[in-house]
Amino acid sequence: MTQIKSKFISREPLDPQEAKWKRLVKTYYTDPNGVKRDWESAERRTRPSGSPVDGVGIFALLNGPSGSELLLEKQYRPPIDQVVIELPAGLIDPGETVEQTAVRELKEETGYIGVADQTSGIMYNDPGFCNSNFNMVYLQVDMSLPENQNPKPDLEDNEFIECFTVPVAQLQTELQKLEKEGYAIDARLGSIAAGIEIAKKLKF
Amino acid sequence: MTQIKSKFISREPLDPQEAKWKRLVKTYYTDPNGVKRDWESAERRTRPSGSPVDGVGIFALLNGPSGSELLLEKQYRPPIDQVVIELPAGLIDPGETVEQTAVRELKEETGYIGVADQTSGIMYNDPGFCNSNFNMVYLQVDMSLPENQNPKPDLEDNEFIECFTVPVAQLQTELQKLEKEGYAIDARLGSIAAGIEIAKKLKF
Repeated sequence: MTQIKSKFISREPLDPQEAKWKRLVKTYYTDPNGVKRDWESAERRTRPSGSPVDGVGIFALLNGPSGSELLLEKQYRPPIDQVVIELPAGLIDPGETVEQTAVRELKEETGYIGVADQTSGIMYNDPGFCNSNFNMVYLQVDMSLPENQNPKPDLEDNEFIECFTVPVAQLQTELQKLEKEGYAIDARLGSIAAGIEIAKKLKF
Repeated sequence: MTQIKSKFISREPLDPQEAKWKRLVKTYYTDPNGVKRDWESAERRTRPSGSPVDGVGIFALLNGPSGSELLLEKQYRPPIDQVVIELPAGLIDPGETVEQTAVRELKEETGYIGVADQTSGIMYNDPGFCNSNFNMVYLQVDMSLPENQNPKPDLEDNEFIECFTVPVAQLQTELQKLEKEGYAIDARLGSIAAGIEIAKKLKF
């Protein structure tokens, strides 16, 4: 964990005048009984104008002679001061389709070249708390291609990401092992692992 | 959708002096190269002191003579002005275990009495944006019990929730149908459905 471990210094309330990336809003609405109510929530300020979505999650399978492996990341996340196990992901740039975002972000964060073959609908991360949302884009990475032999990430100055892979069938077991080692688990990834276990248990 | 549909009026920036339920914070940290950086994020103000977690997600199976059905909810969520398809869920009260929260919230939101038989580790909803997190608690609901014959929710004044069930194996198909009808999909639930489909496709 040493290469990606950052060190927490302090946390303080953020003055909205000073905030550049996030904001709090209040929504007024009328409930089904006609009563006027309000609700506090948080938003990203980075969603491109006209876009219904903030970003993408990337389910990238590395397909080689010995089968398919799921590409995962370890990344320090300041909001929780932990290194998180998560899917590659990223925010949409103006004018991009979600598939273009997914291919670009995979290349930047991991160095691999993938091809999109499926995209989910929009999913909301915590819709009682915030409007944060994403499309899950499924990418196939052909490991026989020369450009995928020696992948080189192109990270931004403030990005410190370590990639690794797990066999999809062992996702839950691997996440539980990593959690015991002190890593935090992203909910989208953890829920996919839960779904795989549910399907195994109910023998679908 | 008529009984639970609220009507959006307006949305405005929220003055943190006035905010009761959410807050923005700035975290200072040193990156792996020793560079001092900062990061903006959002938090709930409701997490009980000393608790590592905000709330629970509830995977409740209704077990009857014809098999198991997954209990889902339709709920209007002001942060996105949409009715969301989601798992039952709730915030932890001071002193509760996550299993106690899950049993209490299931009873309040749906009327059903469930028994916890499994609990996930902590999962983070969107750890680059906020610290919001939960444990997934798996509840079994015995439909042969008298108390589950005629379930009566006990909703708060500002809660408007409609319950329904789907066969677990058809979760993805049902979510796609509901999305076409105009409902939004919660990411935890949508990711469980994705995991089930991945397991089916890869024939685990």
